[in-house]
Amino acid sequence: MVCGLPGIGSVAWLAVNHLQKELHAQLLAEVFSPMFSPKVWLGEDGVVGLMKGEFHFWKNKPGGPDLLLFTANEQPYSPEGQYELAEVALNVANKFGAKRVVTMGGMATDRLAGEPRVYAGATSPDLVTELEAFGAVKLAGGAITGTNGLIFGLAKPKNIPAICLLAETPGYLSLDANAAKAALQLSSRMLNIPIDLTALEKQAKENADVVKKAKDLSHAFPRESRRGGDRGEDKLHYVS
Amino acid sequence: MVCGLPGIGSVAWLAVNHLQKELHAQLLAEVFSPMFSPKVWLGEDGVVGLMKGEFHFWKNKPGGPDLLLFTANEQPYSPEGQYELAEVALNVANKFGAKRVVTMGGMATDRLAGEPRVYAGATSPDLVTELEAFGAVKLAGGAITGTNGLIFGLAKPKNIPAICLLAETPGYLSLDANAAKAALQLSSRMLNIPIDLTALEKQAKENADVVKKAKDLSHAFPRESRRGGDRGEDKLHYVS
Amino acid sequence: MVCGLPGIGSVAWLAVNHLQKELHAQLLAEVFSPMFSPKVWLGEDGVVGLMKGEFHFWKNKPGGPDLLLFTANEQPYSPEGQYELAEVALNVANKFGAKRVVTMGGMATDRLAGEPRVYAGATSPDLVTELEAFGAVKLAGGAITGTNGLIFGLAKPKNIPAICLLAETPGYLSLDANAAKAALQLSSRMLNIPIDLTALEKQAKENADVVKKAKDLSHAFPRESRRGGDRGEDKLHYVS
Amino acid sequence: MVCGLPGIGSVAWLAVNHLQKELHAQLLAEVFSPMFSPKVWLGEDGVVGLMKGEFHFWKNKPGGPDLLLFTANEQPYSPEGQYELAEVALNVANKFGAKRVVTMGGMATDRLAGEPRVYAGATSPDLVTELEAFGAVKLAGGAITGTNGLIFGLAKPKNIPAICLLAETPGYLSLDANAAKAALQLSSRMLNIPIDLTALEKQAKENADVVKKAKDLSHAFPRESRRGGDRGEDKLHYVS
Repeated sequence: MVCGLPGIGSVAWLAVNHLQKELHAQLLAEVFSPMFSPKVWLGEDGVVGLMKGEFHFWKNKPGGPDLLLFTANEQPYSPEGQYELAEVALNVANKFGAKRVVTMGGMATDRLAGEPRVYAGATSPDLVTELEAFGAVKLAGGAITGTNGLIFGLAKPKNIPAICLLAETPGYLSLDANAAKAALQLSSRMLNIPIDLTALEKQAKENADVVKKAKDLSHAFPRESRRGGDRGEDKLHYVS
Repeated sequence: MVCGLPGIGSVAWLAVNHLQKELHAQLLAEVFSPMFSPKVWLGEDGVVGLMKGEFHFWKNKPGGPDLLLFTANEQPYSPEGQYELAEVALNVANKFGAKRVVTMGGMATDRLAGEPRVYAGATSPDLVTELEAFGAVKLAGGAITGTNGLIFGLAKPKNIPAICLLAETPGYLSLDANAAKAALQLSSRMLNIPIDLTALEKQAKENADVVKKAKDLSHAFPRESRRGGDRGEDKLHYVS
Repeated sequence: MVCGLPGIGSVAWLAVNHLQKELHAQLLAEVFSPMFSPKVWLGEDGVVGLMKGEFHFWKNKPGGPDLLLFTANEQPYSPEGQYELAEVALNVANKFGAKRVVTMGGMATDRLAGEPRVYAGATSPDLVTELEAFGAVKLAGGAITGTNGLIFGLAKPKNIPAICLLAETPGYLSLDANAAKAALQLSSRMLNIPIDLTALEKQAKENADVVKKAKDLSHAFPRESRRGGDRGEDKLHYVS
Repeated sequence: MVCGLPGIGSVAWLAVNHLQKELHAQLLAEVFSPMFSPKVWLGEDGVVGLMKGEFHFWKNKPGGPDLLLFTANEQPYSPEGQYELAEVALNVANKFGAKRVVTMGGMATDRLAGEPRVYAGATSPDLVTELEAFGAVKLAGGAITGTNGLIFGLAKPKNIPAICLLAETPGYLSLDANAAKAALQLSSRMLNIPIDLTALEKQAKENADVVKKAKDLSHAFPRESRRGGDRGEDKLHYVS
């Protein structure tokens, strides 16, 4: 199962939505619950939609792993709701006999790399080693908050091997397609499922152009006009 | 079922209360619950009343649709309570075999029209088209928060066709009878149930007079004394 | 059942505790619950006590009504907890076949009367009339918040006749024995149970002396030194 | 059962963790629950851990009392969660036939003693007297908030004799090993279980050196530069 709920840079959400579209995964189940915000949204056609979680299923060729995808419009607003949604996701994973749980997220950094690093943690040291072999950097220490972290962590007492991939994201991007791409590349290698990343690359290129323009613009202004302190010419500022 | 809980301009609440009085609908059930505020109120006769939801029933002439009305003194204060009350309302609707759910609300705007527009969303594109034929403006995009929105949205997975009508309201009126009238006129046409709107019209007229006086008064003062920015002579300011 | 939980001036709490001591009522049941604050307190002897509700029972002489008393160290901190505790109290009242529920409280006022007025509301107009005959002032309009109000109001759908007595209290007193005495006097007349009020009178006298001293003192200082606005020489200031 | 959850100076948490390590107590059960924060943490090896409670068991030599130890990474964030965790702990204590419950904590003080006093309260006057005989100071009055206090207090209606030991701690230490040592010394005497306190003594010595350095440093600066008021040369400032 690959899980991605909205979070920093929407990294996980972008990644799972990309997977769903590229693989033409089928809608399996929807989760409506008071753990989501008390609101509804309207499409351009005037038709109502609810805040919800969604499971999609993708049937692989014989021999390869099938994929169960899980995402939602938002993270539950209460801590109890976040635990509850993580439980729901893992129960569905169990019901479908998921062999491994992959969660994702963004890690705020002030390094804006063309190739963001992907940090990885897991439910066992063996899995961490496996992830390092695929190019991930070991996530040594720290905490992961929210539903993505809970799905990852709660898989452990349920004896489902789980990993969490955090791609570097500059923090000022609300939709960081480049970080999502980095997380997906690593997942793709690990799961041995080739994924066409063209759409994400296109979006990432557009993001980069916008950031470059903003950077040029900020150099055109005197230092005093910038909000917050300056942390060196080569680093970009970010808001966590 | 026609639902109207307190909200912006009390549009929905005014509309459903008007329906109940004009149609002499009978009290069917009351909902007392910890999801309401922990308080009671006293009438002029010293008799206590609880915060509650109320269902009223109106028997139509043979051939026409009966009406189930739902309203409450207030919206539940917690998100979970809002979901719970929406569930209660829809369960009663289901038990009585409601064919359609109509929810209402106000849409804050700075246009003060003699004839407020009524925006409409629905659970299916067909219903949206039907509403446009009755004079509604398609609600393309946006979000509806609170219990009125949840009753509307949660009807969808329960397979009850539902619509939401949002009448324009200037936002500074706590009881906008004119907006309630506009929402009711459209409902009346759609449900093919004639409704005498005289009482609402009278109240709307009084509102308009009060607003006119306030407007005249505000012109008598220098611009600097007004709170907030001025957004043009022809527009009224509003607080959302 | 006579109920009194802590509130403005601790009027109800003082009244029910006085009843319990004067009548030597017996402890019937204790309520421990997560709806109370997560803390414990220690007595002078180092022995721990919990936040709790308590029911006491008093057996009257043949012919007169027995009394069930209910109080607690504090009101539950959450709205849901306040509803829950009110339900608990009324369920016990039902189990013991209580014929009438009496709740009390303080009504903040800036009138400091030797004889505070007692305002009264009830679950039926007949009861209001009866209370007026006993000297109460009809509580026409307004809201009563908190557990005392909920026990009163929720008695109505449970078909237990209930009344609420609110004694005038200046608001700046945390323990207003004079108001508690006034509420008890009226209850005593209505229930036809004579109650010795000497202890409350003594405490009320001490309160009055303290207030008089504070008043004399405030006159000795220039007006500018007082906090808040001055609302006339004859009125005392209060904080609601 | 000896219980110690994080709190002021981490006194109880340090004490129970020391017991567990010194006695080589075996892990008995883990408690995962939405009452904990919605986050996970990562070890230096990249392996995920959950917020949780832990029970450890230590088998004594024949004739002496076995020990059940209970601790957690954190206290539940909600009042209801704190009550729930206290119930869980006491239910496990009951299942294992615990004869006595020992809870601990820190008491913020501005006295920095080489030998911190240990204050004690209990569920009965006899137990208080027993604790005084072991060198504790009677906790006469006051309140204990949080899960440590609730485990202590809720043991009373469950008829499990319980005590609470609060060791003096200066408040500015996040890990006060000296206070933990003092609480353990008293527990050790009372339970007649010898405990090697060398590791705690070493940590306490390091703490004292750091505090001494900070104190010397604060004397080197003019008074005006210190935050807060000065409460005498001999007293150390603390933040509660």
